[in-house]
Amino acid sequence: MAGKVYLIGAGPGAADLITVRGMRLLQAADAVLYDALVQPEMLAYCPQAVLIPVGKRCAQASTAQRFINKMLLDAAGKYGTVVRLKGGDPMLFGRAQEEMGALDEAGIAYEVVPGITAALAASADAGVSLTSRGLARNVLFATARVGEGEAGSDWVKPVLAADTTVLYMGVRQAAEVARTLLAGGMSAQTPLLIIENASLPQRKEFALSLADLPQVADWQLQGPAILLIGEVYRAKLALSNAEPLALTA
Amino acid sequence: MAGKVYLIGAGPGAADLITVRGMRLLQAADAVLYDALVQPEMLAYCPQAVLIPVGKRCAQASTAQRFINKMLLDAAGKYGTVVRLKGGDPMLFGRAQEEMGALDEAGIAYEVVPGITAALAASADAGVSLTSRGLARNVLFATARVGEGEAGSDWVKPVLAADTTVLYMGVRQAAEVARTLLAGGMSAQTPLLIIENASLPQRKEFALSLADLPQVADWQLQGPAILLIGEVYRAKLALSNAEPLALTA
Repeated sequence: MAGKVYLIGAGPGAADLITVRGMRLLQAADAVLYDALVQPEMLAYCPQAVLIPVGKRCAQASTAQRFINKMLLDAAGKYGTVVRLKGGDPMLFGRAQEEMGALDEAGIAYEVVPGITAALAASADAGVSLTSRGLARNVLFATARVGEGEAGSDWVKPVLAADTTVLYMGVRQAAEVARTLLAGGMSAQTPLLIIENASLPQRKEFALSLADLPQVADWQLQGPAILLIGEVYRAKLALSNAEPLALTA
Repeated sequence: MAGKVYLIGAGPGAADLITVRGMRLLQAADAVLYDALVQPEMLAYCPQAVLIPVGKRCAQASTAQRFINKMLLDAAGKYGTVVRLKGGDPMLFGRAQEEMGALDEAGIAYEVVPGITAALAASADAGVSLTSRGLARNVLFATARVGEGEAGSDWVKPVLAADTTVLYMGVRQAAEVARTLLAGGMSAQTPLLIIENASLPQRKEFALSLADLPQVADWQLQGPAILLIGEVYRAKLALSNAEPLALTA
C-alpha cells in the first residue's frame, strides 16, 4: 500500500514563512524530500521524519528531475506520509507538473500545498507593492532565457508588455539580460530592484537603472536573487542614487 | 507613543493557509483590522484582540481607502501591536502602497508579511502548474478593466503576450472580458479555468474555452473568483468536455 504525498511550498527561505498547513504536515511526516533551496531551520519542524535531500533545483534539469521522481515514488511505497518540500511555491517555476505526472502514473495520491513565492516576500521586505494604483496594473513572473540563439529573446516580449516584471533566476546573466531588454526597446532609465536571499537575515537589496545592470555580473551574489523591473521601483532608485552601488541590507 | 503595524496577507481563505509568522502575530495582536474577504475562522487565532472590520475590499475605491487609512492610524495610536489583515497578499492587488504611505507620513513603524495569493492556492487545488516546461515559461497576474472607454482594452496587450494569465476580479464581467480578448486576437479555443472560492470547502472549478466564457455571466457565482487562461489548462478542458457545463467541486 502506497503512502500519500504532499507537495509543499517551503516559501522564500525564512522558516516562519511556510504556511500553517505546511508546518503541520511537516510535523506529521514520516519522510521529507527537500530541495537545496530549503533552509535547515525549516527541517526543525520535522525531527521525527526521515530526511532525504534531493539536490539543487536548477542543476541539470531533466536527468535530475527523473531521479527526483524515482525517489518520490520509492518513498511513497515505503512511508505513510511523504512530504516533498520545494523552495518557493510548487506551481510557479517549481516543476511540480513533472512530479505530479509521475505520481498520477503510479496511482499515488497527492495534494499540493502552496507556498510564498520569492517575489511576494521580496516585495514585503522592500516595502514596494508589485501593483500600484495608476502606476502598475499587472505583474509578470518570468525567467530569462539567454544564450539560446534565435529563441533566446522570446522571453522579452511579455516583459515589455507588462507594467511590473519579476525575473526569477535572471541576475547571474545580468549583462545578457540587460542587452536583450535594451535591444527590445526598454528604456535604459527603467528602475530595477535586485533582491538576494529574500526573507533571510543575509538579505540584500539594490536599486539601479537598466543602464547599470551589466555591472551586476561582477558582484558575485552568493544566494538566490530575483530581478524586479518597473516604474514602481523609481522611488527606491531615487533613494539609492544618494548612495550609489552600495548594497544595503 | 504609537504602536507597530503589521500588514499581513491572510492568504486565499483557508485558515491554515496563512503563514506561521502571520498566525503568530495574530496571536500576539492587540487590535486586528480585517477585510470582508477574511474568513471568520482566521480570527480564531486572535480571541484576545479588539476586532475592527474595515469593509469590502473593492467597494467604492478611494473613499473607502481613506477611511481605512484613518482607522489604521487611530488604532496605531491606541494599541501596541496592530494587525492589518488583508485577503491574499498585500503587495498584489492589495492596495498596501496607500496604507504604507499613510503610515510613513504619520511616522508609524510597520512591517509587511506576505500571503498566499489566490492564483497559487487555486493552482494547488486544481493540480495544474502556472508554468510548465515547454508550455508556459511565464505568468501574468492582472485585472481586467472593462467599461472604461478607449483605455478599457489596455489590459489586453500583456495578456496576449503572456503564456499563462490569471485575471483577478474578471469573472463578473465575463462577457466583456471575452469580447475584448477575442477582439485582441486570442483564439476562441483558448482553454480557461475559473476557480471560485479557492482553498475553501465551497470551492468550485470550471474548465471552458474562451468561446464559452460569455455564458459565465449567468452562473451567478457567489464568492470571489479568478480566471486562469492558457495552454496549461487544455487537459482540464478535455476532461470537462466529457461533462459539459457542470461545475465540479
